[in-house]
Amino acid sequence: MGKQLETDPSAGFSCPLPIEQYPTVLLAHGGGGRLSHQLVQKMFLPRFDNPHLARLHDGAILDTGGARLAFSTDSYVVNPIFFPGGDIGELAVNGTVNDLAMCGARAQFLSAAFILEEGLPMEVLWKIVVSMQEAASRAGVTVVTGDTKVVDRGKGDKIFINTSGIGLMRDGVTIDPSNAQPGDAILLSGTIADHGIAVLSLREGLEFRTRLASDTAPLNGLVDAMFAASTEIHVMRDPTRGGVASALNEIAGAARLGMVLEESRIPVREEVRGACEFLGLDPLYVANEGKLLAIVPRPLAERILLAMRAHPLGKDAAVVGEVVQDHPGVVLMRSTIGGMRVVDMLSGEQLPRIC
Amino acid sequence: MGKQLETDPSAGFSCPLPIEQYPTVLLAHGGGGRLSHQLVQKMFLPRFDNPHLARLHDGAILDTGGARLAFSTDSYVVNPIFFPGGDIGELAVNGTVNDLAMCGARAQFLSAAFILEEGLPMEVLWKIVVSMQEAASRAGVTVVTGDTKVVDRGKGDKIFINTSGIGLMRDGVTIDPSNAQPGDAILLSGTIADHGIAVLSLREGLEFRTRLASDTAPLNGLVDAMFAASTEIHVMRDPTRGGVASALNEIAGAARLGMVLEESRIPVREEVRGACEFLGLDPLYVANEGKLLAIVPRPLAERILLAMRAHPLGKDAAVVGEVVQDHPGVVLMRSTIGGMRVVDMLSGEQLPRIC
Repeated sequence: MGKQLETDPSAGFSCPLPIEQYPTVLLAHGGGGRLSHQLVQKMFLPRFDNPHLARLHDGAILDTGGARLAFSTDSYVVNPIFFPGGDIGELAVNGTVNDLAMCGARAQFLSAAFILEEGLPMEVLWKIVVSMQEAASRAGVTVVTGDTKVVDRGKGDKIFINTSGIGLMRDGVTIDPSNAQPGDAILLSGTIADHGIAVLSLREGLEFRTRLASDTAPLNGLVDAMFAASTEIHVMRDPTRGGVASALNEIAGAARLGMVLEESRIPVREEVRGACEFLGLDPLYVANEGKLLAIVPRPLAERILLAMRAHPLGKDAAVVGEVVQDHPGVVLMRSTIGGMRVVDMLSGEQLPRIC
Repeated sequence: MGKQLETDPSAGFSCPLPIEQYPTVLLAHGGGGRLSHQLVQKMFLPRFDNPHLARLHDGAILDTGGARLAFSTDSYVVNPIFFPGGDIGELAVNGTVNDLAMCGARAQFLSAAFILEEGLPMEVLWKIVVSMQEAASRAGVTVVTGDTKVVDRGKGDKIFINTSGIGLMRDGVTIDPSNAQPGDAILLSGTIADHGIAVLSLREGLEFRTRLASDTAPLNGLVDAMFAASTEIHVMRDPTRGGVASALNEIAGAARLGMVLEESRIPVREEVRGACEFLGLDPLYVANEGKLLAIVPRPLAERILLAMRAHPLGKDAAVVGEVVQDHPGVVLMRSTIGGMRVVDMLSGEQLPRIC
């Protein structure tokens, strides 16, 4: 009823999204593609208008009390909650640790907020709590505050977890999509689509699911190694929902620059490629939970790449493309047989509830 | 499947809660009473073991990068999402602002994470976003980072919102349940049970609902006024879920001290008292969203009380009881007719999904 809303005509009561086209929220509004982007751009950014949000980063960079911090939040609604290679608890910890790492910060403190569905077996909750604590311990972060809500049966789905995190920014480091420069190299830390395909194959009951596993992992160690090689990293992003394609499109849009990818250089596991073909999915759009993209000055690319390859989570790292002046906002890919195609942001929902 | 769990026998795989008694999560585990408390004490605290969590406060106090910060999180699942006097968006902003204020911090930055149910009308989402922004503006905080997930129809309930927040601690202030001292006065900022009864009366379709309204409000201005009167406030707590009774029981337990309340001094609106009688509820257990309890040295009580009464949100403030050495962990109340009764923590769920 928003008592203020009724009395303040300047409140902007009319919804800025085209209601005729999207009268209700669709699954695709949470998919990380064009509709997610539109929701943020048209609804959240103009209303909550401030320079932190406008940066459209994985987290906000804040100056307070003399400290320079990163602050990030994510809710996890993955279905199923246990999947090959991980579970919702581990994902929730690693995901926020990674968002902070992508800001150039060292993750320190996490919050954990649970929305439980009445009837969730207590042992399932305990298993997830244990998994979160182990993930936090591996990532070197502490869960310092929390909250638990319970909703009636049929009004939730077993368990949803929100983690928010605080990290301390490295001195002299500024990671921002707008830092990308023409000529920069685009680095990818390893094989793509592992997480999304592992979850989906379980959901769909696919035969080959036993050979697949989520890549969920804390990327802060890998990022430490990269910064030890050079502090002049321009942009970092972990390509989660919407995959590599959506992450690069967002960066290209924010930087008003183009990108050219080399398909032959993008590592995809054989079994993941097979599953993608079977399911009719393009691995470029499938979620990753332990991979990162980095945009770095070309002269430093080799040094940073070597540092990545020396880390277990970066052993398959590769230079997969470059930033160009041409076709700003557009990501192109040179296919293995030589043709060029546009790698657009998807409008629809490829994989609901993947994280 | 928690790959670590299967290989590490020390992981503590057996659930520490009595499974025979509570094989599944009940609504009461989210109600703020005894079962909520048990979940935190037996499951979360031992596993995430660290001094921040162990303080069992509304938020954690952190030292990082030279700054002393408070960090808090809460998810909001209130049903219905619009109610007399507010909505889920306003509640989500005020709730986290208040948790930070109760730590002795000045709230600065919020995150906002939405879990939307497929099919939520886009205009409802917009109305809530507008309400959140207005609440943030009133409280003087900025929403700096966010997240949106969408779950399939029937797997959520319209909208759940998590807000986490960062506040800067006031110099020289330490608010902690264990600071309470025998002889301290217990202050209450105003009438109790307004929020819970407003929401419940709407849910139950009660006739008299038009005369009730939630008290949702940001308490940071009132807290500023109190600290201006004295920085020697020992404990503060906003009695949300579980009401005044649960909040005082938690503090008495943490401080290992007793409390004696004077029923006649606890302000309750006439219409709220009537609704409570009609519904068979004790207002001491009903949620508030714009009230605070403060435990202060007796010699300072009058000065702090006057400062509270000079603020619009504290005009009905009163000294409602005192901290005593006797009966540690137990809250007693002298009734209006003179008898004493134990004000225990409730085991069951009085009001599900009240915030």
